[in-house]
Amino acid sequence: MTDRLPDSPKNPTAHPSGHERGHERALPDKRTLLGPGPSDLPLRVLRALSHPVVGHLDPQYLALMDRVRAHLRAVWATANEVTLALPGTGTSGMEACFANLLEPGDNVLVGVAGYFGARMVEVAERHGAHVHRLEVTWGEAIPVERAIAAIRKSRPRAVALVHAETSTGVWQDVAEIFAAAREEGALTILDCVTSLGGLPVEIDAWGVDAAYSCTQKCLGCPPGLAPVTFSARAMQRIRSRKIPVHSFYLDLDLHAKYWGTERAYHHTAPASLLYALHEGLELIHEEGLQTRFARHRRNHQALVDGLEAMGLSIWTRPELRLPTLHAVSVPEGVDEAAVRRDLIEQHAIEIGAGLGPLKGQIWRLGLMGASSTSQNVLLVLAALEQALHRVGAGAFPGGTAAAIQTYRAAGSGN
Amino acid sequence: MTDRLPDSPKNPTAHPSGHERGHERALPDKRTLLGPGPSDLPLRVLRALSHPVVGHLDPQYLALMDRVRAHLRAVWATANEVTLALPGTGTSGMEACFANLLEPGDNVLVGVAGYFGARMVEVAERHGAHVHRLEVTWGEAIPVERAIAAIRKSRPRAVALVHAETSTGVWQDVAEIFAAAREEGALTILDCVTSLGGLPVEIDAWGVDAAYSCTQKCLGCPPGLAPVTFSARAMQRIRSRKIPVHSFYLDLDLHAKYWGTERAYHHTAPASLLYALHEGLELIHEEGLQTRFARHRRNHQALVDGLEAMGLSIWTRPELRLPTLHAVSVPEGVDEAAVRRDLIEQHAIEIGAGLGPLKGQIWRLGLMGASSTSQNVLLVLAALEQALHRVGAGAFPGGTAAAIQTYRAAGSGN
Repeated sequence: MTDRLPDSPKNPTAHPSGHERGHERALPDKRTLLGPGPSDLPLRVLRALSHPVVGHLDPQYLALMDRVRAHLRAVWATANEVTLALPGTGTSGMEACFANLLEPGDNVLVGVAGYFGARMVEVAERHGAHVHRLEVTWGEAIPVERAIAAIRKSRPRAVALVHAETSTGVWQDVAEIFAAAREEGALTILDCVTSLGGLPVEIDAWGVDAAYSCTQKCLGCPPGLAPVTFSARAMQRIRSRKIPVHSFYLDLDLHAKYWGTERAYHHTAPASLLYALHEGLELIHEEGLQTRFARHRRNHQALVDGLEAMGLSIWTRPELRLPTLHAVSVPEGVDEAAVRRDLIEQHAIEIGAGLGPLKGQIWRLGLMGASSTSQNVLLVLAALEQALHRVGAGAFPGGTAAAIQTYRAAGSGN
Repeated sequence: MTDRLPDSPKNPTAHPSGHERGHERALPDKRTLLGPGPSDLPLRVLRALSHPVVGHLDPQYLALMDRVRAHLRAVWATANEVTLALPGTGTSGMEACFANLLEPGDNVLVGVAGYFGARMVEVAERHGAHVHRLEVTWGEAIPVERAIAAIRKSRPRAVALVHAETSTGVWQDVAEIFAAAREEGALTILDCVTSLGGLPVEIDAWGVDAAYSCTQKCLGCPPGLAPVTFSARAMQRIRSRKIPVHSFYLDLDLHAKYWGTERAYHHTAPASLLYALHEGLELIHEEGLQTRFARHRRNHQALVDGLEAMGLSIWTRPELRLPTLHAVSVPEGVDEAAVRRDLIEQHAIEIGAGLGPLKGQIWRLGLMGASSTSQNVLLVLAALEQALHRVGAGAFPGGTAAAIQTYRAAGSGN
């Protein structure tokens, strides 16, 4: 226990020196976030983050958890008792669903139409499940009839779908597939990472037994929490497991006991993130869900019209397009990374690159939560026009004019 | 997709109404946090939380991660390449250590001297390990000779200890035990949840292969991240696993690839919490680790002297006492919950209750991070005197006078 820590740069365990640190510039510049998430944070949400932290059993904190739960039920359109925010990112929510609902050897049917469907397969397999992949080419949705046939054939313990595939910008119809799954006695799992708060998600009406999302996309909050909701059927399944869930951290029953009346200690709640989530949900409540969905649709339409007027094309087929995330084809011969670099350097705008097989083929342009505004649509269209010109791709005019026309026709601003 | 969400309180899926919400009082009151964590957040840390979020692959964010890693290496006193902050609370760090280092059937020797030692056992067993408990009565530390004998006898794959047991306020000596473990070829795992940043933790000097902590205790940051560090030996073990880690979310190799040069996407980083952690680590750097440890020792001594002068006693034996967390015996016949309630209602001070078998027997009084100040020591001594009187426990005078004397003798303030 001697002083082994002089603040000398020669010591490999030393803090970064003042020079290395560039103290005054430690935190990143402000960006306009138009990628696949995170999205921009409203000022009220940013302010809520800096509210003083309290203990995880403080009565006032417990009351706040109850309010967050009520808000989440409204956004999920569910009366599920077990509706809460896990202390991890969206991926922790995905893992919680598979880890808790499945036991080693259980069969699960997973729709794979992109990167996040494939991630569900990996997570389910790590927890010992036997996975049947229902796979389609990236850019397609899982066909309803094919899914129903697969369910009747394989009679799985659970059926999992991605509602909004972040890698392809594709929307998945789920209600009919899940109805068939429940007819066969299967539990239903839905990934709502890129839909919750941006387009309708109807947990009870669609017969969803377990769903997860994140906070940093259409809910307009900082990343770090995973809203989840579990039906009574799902909880019954969890409470009758033969072997404990591998993960103590993501054991849903323990979380349900902390969010429920027992208030049993399980982890020290990330209070700052819950403050922010609460404020983001208040904003959603004030805006109204239907108004919010309409805003996402309107800005989506203006962006699409603008991009197409410029001569760019949306990679995703029209009937499958999400209003929240746009896969935009990179024109032949254009260096897509140079365009993204130009956007961030010249305008501090972040858009996303393609994942996996779509790397270099598409940009991913998100209009989610507070980022879905007419200002951002007009800005990104203009900035893209400039960037394409600057990287030598030629002229792509007319984007903002087309978007303005769309807004005018809709009789509204953002 | 009809409008199923009127904002009516009759609808079970409706948002909380304005009346229920009590909008202006949604977030909890400011508390003085003198329990087992979280501790008070310095203003600079609170401010960092509200800095705008950026994407998890933004070059400026990646640079911030590098700075955080360098700071963490200094606080851990290690040169370990794999030193990072997991996107979950301290318990996620505990789970990451056991889930990654052990494969089903591996033997592990776990020191159990309180609640968190027992939690390590549960986590290890869930991941399929065969656990040998090295158990002592709560209030004791694991005896070095007994531990060494157990290691030589059971020749485990890994040996795990809690450096600072939060349930009992007991400090555990680890260097000799871990030296013996490594002689026998075992990996060593250390829980530093209530020590890192408050007392010396020497990862390299003590031969620790894997360690985890939290952010909300002696590091003085909000809860939600788990700093971890893994030796080259530990990473070699992880990379030669025969079966994948059950948890995708806590797969260390995937986190190491994101924090390392590959920058491979795994999860959307909780940027706000990393901003706060960075600022908290900058504050530690500015204060200096040795100065910080001395501050924790000095305030610990003043608190103990004050409590004993009042006629209260520290439940933990003197030679095992942590400077960061104090187990204080509840006097015979006193309603311990009434005292805690009085402290929070009259002074907005949070202290902790006893866990498990110590429920009702002790209070847990933390002096960690920014909460470890002479002001807080004097305040809590005075407030306790008042509270004990108010609950009818009688007179407990002299606490502040004794603490003032201790500070005077030490020739310093906080």
